[in-house]
Amino acid sequence: MGKKIKHAISPTRDEDYSEWYQQAVGASEMAERSSVRGCMVIKPWGYALWENISGKLDEMFKETGVKNAYFPLFIPLSFFEKEALHVEGFAKECAVVTHHRLEKDGKGGLVPAGPLQEPLVVRPTSETIIGDSFSRWVSSYRDLPLLINQWANVVRWEMRTRIFLRTTEFLWQEGHTAHADEKEARQRTLMMLEIYREFSEKYLAMPVITGSKTPLERFPGAVDTFCIEAMMQDKKALQAGTSHFLGQNFAKASGITYQNAQEKEEFAWTTSWGVSTRLIGGMIMAHGDDDGIILPPRVASSHVVLMPIIRKPDDRGRVMEFTESLARELKAQTYHGSGVRVEIDDRDIGGGKGWEWIKKGIPVRVEIGPRDIEEGSVFVGRRDRDHKKRESIPRKRFVEDLPDILDEIQQTLYDRALAFMEENKKVISGKKEFYDFFTPKNADKPEIHGGFAVSDWCGSDDCESTIKSDLGVTIRCIPFDSEPTGGGCVCCGKEGRHQAVFAKSY
Amino acid sequence: MGKKIKHAISPTRDEDYSEWYQQAVGASEMAERSSVRGCMVIKPWGYALWENISGKLDEMFKETGVKNAYFPLFIPLSFFEKEALHVEGFAKECAVVTHHRLEKDGKGGLVPAGPLQEPLVVRPTSETIIGDSFSRWVSSYRDLPLLINQWANVVRWEMRTRIFLRTTEFLWQEGHTAHADEKEARQRTLMMLEIYREFSEKYLAMPVITGSKTPLERFPGAVDTFCIEAMMQDKKALQAGTSHFLGQNFAKASGITYQNAQEKEEFAWTTSWGVSTRLIGGMIMAHGDDDGIILPPRVASSHVVLMPIIRKPDDRGRVMEFTESLARELKAQTYHGSGVRVEIDDRDIGGGKGWEWIKKGIPVRVEIGPRDIEEGSVFVGRRDRDHKKRESIPRKRFVEDLPDILDEIQQTLYDRALAFMEENKKVISGKKEFYDFFTPKNADKPEIHGGFAVSDWCGSDDCESTIKSDLGVTIRCIPFDSEPTGGGCVCCGKEGRHQAVFAKSY
Repeated sequence: MGKKIKHAISPTRDEDYSEWYQQAVGASEMAERSSVRGCMVIKPWGYALWENISGKLDEMFKETGVKNAYFPLFIPLSFFEKEALHVEGFAKECAVVTHHRLEKDGKGGLVPAGPLQEPLVVRPTSETIIGDSFSRWVSSYRDLPLLINQWANVVRWEMRTRIFLRTTEFLWQEGHTAHADEKEARQRTLMMLEIYREFSEKYLAMPVITGSKTPLERFPGAVDTFCIEAMMQDKKALQAGTSHFLGQNFAKASGITYQNAQEKEEFAWTTSWGVSTRLIGGMIMAHGDDDGIILPPRVASSHVVLMPIIRKPDDRGRVMEFTESLARELKAQTYHGSGVRVEIDDRDIGGGKGWEWIKKGIPVRVEIGPRDIEEGSVFVGRRDRDHKKRESIPRKRFVEDLPDILDEIQQTLYDRALAFMEENKKVISGKKEFYDFFTPKNADKPEIHGGFAVSDWCGSDDCESTIKSDLGVTIRCIPFDSEPTGGGCVCCGKEGRHQAVFAKSY
Repeated sequence: MGKKIKHAISPTRDEDYSEWYQQAVGASEMAERSSVRGCMVIKPWGYALWENISGKLDEMFKETGVKNAYFPLFIPLSFFEKEALHVEGFAKECAVVTHHRLEKDGKGGLVPAGPLQEPLVVRPTSETIIGDSFSRWVSSYRDLPLLINQWANVVRWEMRTRIFLRTTEFLWQEGHTAHADEKEARQRTLMMLEIYREFSEKYLAMPVITGSKTPLERFPGAVDTFCIEAMMQDKKALQAGTSHFLGQNFAKASGITYQNAQEKEEFAWTTSWGVSTRLIGGMIMAHGDDDGIILPPRVASSHVVLMPIIRKPDDRGRVMEFTESLARELKAQTYHGSGVRVEIDDRDIGGGKGWEWIKKGIPVRVEIGPRDIEEGSVFVGRRDRDHKKRESIPRKRFVEDLPDILDEIQQTLYDRALAFMEENKKVISGKKEFYDFFTPKNADKPEIHGGFAVSDWCGSDDCESTIKSDLGVTIRCIPFDSEPTGGGCVCCGKEGRHQAVFAKSY
């Protein structure tokens, strides 16, 4: 019997991935469930991460000419009804405001009063309400393209919720653009998808597959939906971002028309695209280990924690002096365009501090004790390495090298996640092998399966639905520039029209 | 009869201030009314301003140790009911979610379905829902102080709305802190008020009076409310920010307790403080003129617009080259810690461009024609000066001087607004003079009145209410460090307990 290795998170990923996730999120102090059904509280450590994520994305959007604006939280029911597929897609999961005040019920409680003439839907997404503004803002081809983004909260009344991945309320950005011609709108759809891919891979260190969704998996009302899909460590897929080419569907629903250069009235072509706080869940599940979450340095809430070790009250003065001057030197270093983010944890709570920061996923931990000071060195732990592998580094070298250390950690996380995805992605051409791939080998571990299957698909809704109902597996995307592998549809055996990536998903 | 002077906004401020405001906001393209009752759409030009405002405030908050977090949009009715005064203050104006899906009504329409067991209130403010988290986060004196801020949307179902000033939904920040002792909580309340004062005066160029609210004007549930009050150009007051010392009221309602160093359980002392998109309305009304809004440079959506003038198609090349290289040079200049923000407007729409930018309130306009290029100069208009007073400045000098020009404009706006407030603030000690001061001289112009009256008040709710019902005048604040002037209560004539600032208000 091997020696039992202790980890900070129980259960481990192998023991119960789903429960590991909940425990790792809780231990990281990123977020917690609130007392409101399905809604989360994003705690400071999680919100700082979101500020870094949204800040960088915002910069990337603006570089392409996008401007931010803000539209109402509420959507009148009549707007919502305008696009038939759209309303069908969201009607089953929306919060509806029906009253505008509260009155005493005579028994010491309060009841809703002041019924609204027309109920209001709390936005699950804003195509219809933004379309209403666009219809006023656009009149000539000179007003196009219109490139708008909104950072906002949205609400979808999900029955089963999971922190960051699927919550009733979440934070996101939704971009909405209108164009004079179809080609330009299609280009914009793909341009934004490319930004999502680049951001996921370079900033979240999370490799993704890009491609288009099947008709059954499209955004309600879209002509084409494109997505980035990442592999989590339980080999399930996570849809991490989507970009939709909406054709003229929403322009017709909202009356977004313009006069072209020949003075003819035309409908605009529109797009929408979004990523949300779900990215945080994906990042946690892509990188976390049995000691908790691991933050990729480029978006990390903070980069390095300094932990002075004060064994005798007499030591405090010089240990804190060393710590604070080191913090100043580190903050003066730049890392990808901004300062290094430094925490000082001088709480007098004994040795548990180190574990707290490991569970929070901070990239670099530094211990500073009287002996380190004498030696002019610091004792450094990296979150991408085993927590026991710490090393003493001369202070000066550490300050100089920190940006490189952070980039190394970033690269390690990406390489690991990429290797994991490659290992667990398999080209499969026969139905039996496909079904085997997704069938759990162990009845006790129904969640364990093969990963991503790259297989041919005939293009029929029927085959897609059969696989979904048999295995709980969906087509995550049809990768760009892929050709059928030639093995025939993995379900019906007929000629494959597309190569598709099949997986279980969040 | 004098020559009729043409202005960009009709009516002028003198003709009809209230309508001027609506027209000036519309012409600025900052925001518009939406199709949702009482909700506004913040357009890109307005949202960029909000980004600058919120970005700077966020920096100021963080410097004092505050961290951002995010809490649910919805508040369960039972939470809302916990603090008696609080619920009374907000029950009359809140949006209530009662259903979580929509169903077909059989006539082609949709109706709310899936009634909630407990209705949810869309947050009008978050004391109760944040208190719920705080009660979990705080257990020992070591967890205090807890210094949290949230940037969010809130909803108050106002009957009469006015863009930026009073809208059903608005954007704001709400800070919430918890402390182990009363003194520290009181200090935090005043520290945040001081940040609001500094921000209003230094960034919005809007002078304010600071002080405490009377019991009748306090935030529902607060022990003390402090505020910054600014004077608009119609001499009415605008409450531009508030900071509340909540005592232990909300700690008791939410169960925020901690164990002190002697292991005794105590209730925490809490504060809350907020400013909102209302600041934008205040800024517009403090500085705008009859040509539209004027943006203070330190928060302006953009600083300078370059308008190439291309009379002949042949000129385009060199005019655009000059314009673009000038833009690069200007952007490389720094202004208060970030780059100069530059727009290029090369639309081929004739002379109307200049007026559009005047109405948008951009601090500096630059025209660039072939003759300017030959002379190596630019033709500059400043928004703090008459639109006809433009001057030719050598290009090199303009680039060097732009940060100083922007600071001059900032200072001019502040000086003007301060002089206006001083002119229209009067110490008044007799009741007759007081009533005269607030009584319109011209029946056609019921909105015209004296301004701010600085008068003694006996401290009774009765006198305060009498003045409010007689004149529509309220006590805006009791300025810090003020002594009664000695003239006796301006209503009842008894000894004054406080010197108070009385005014009509938004």
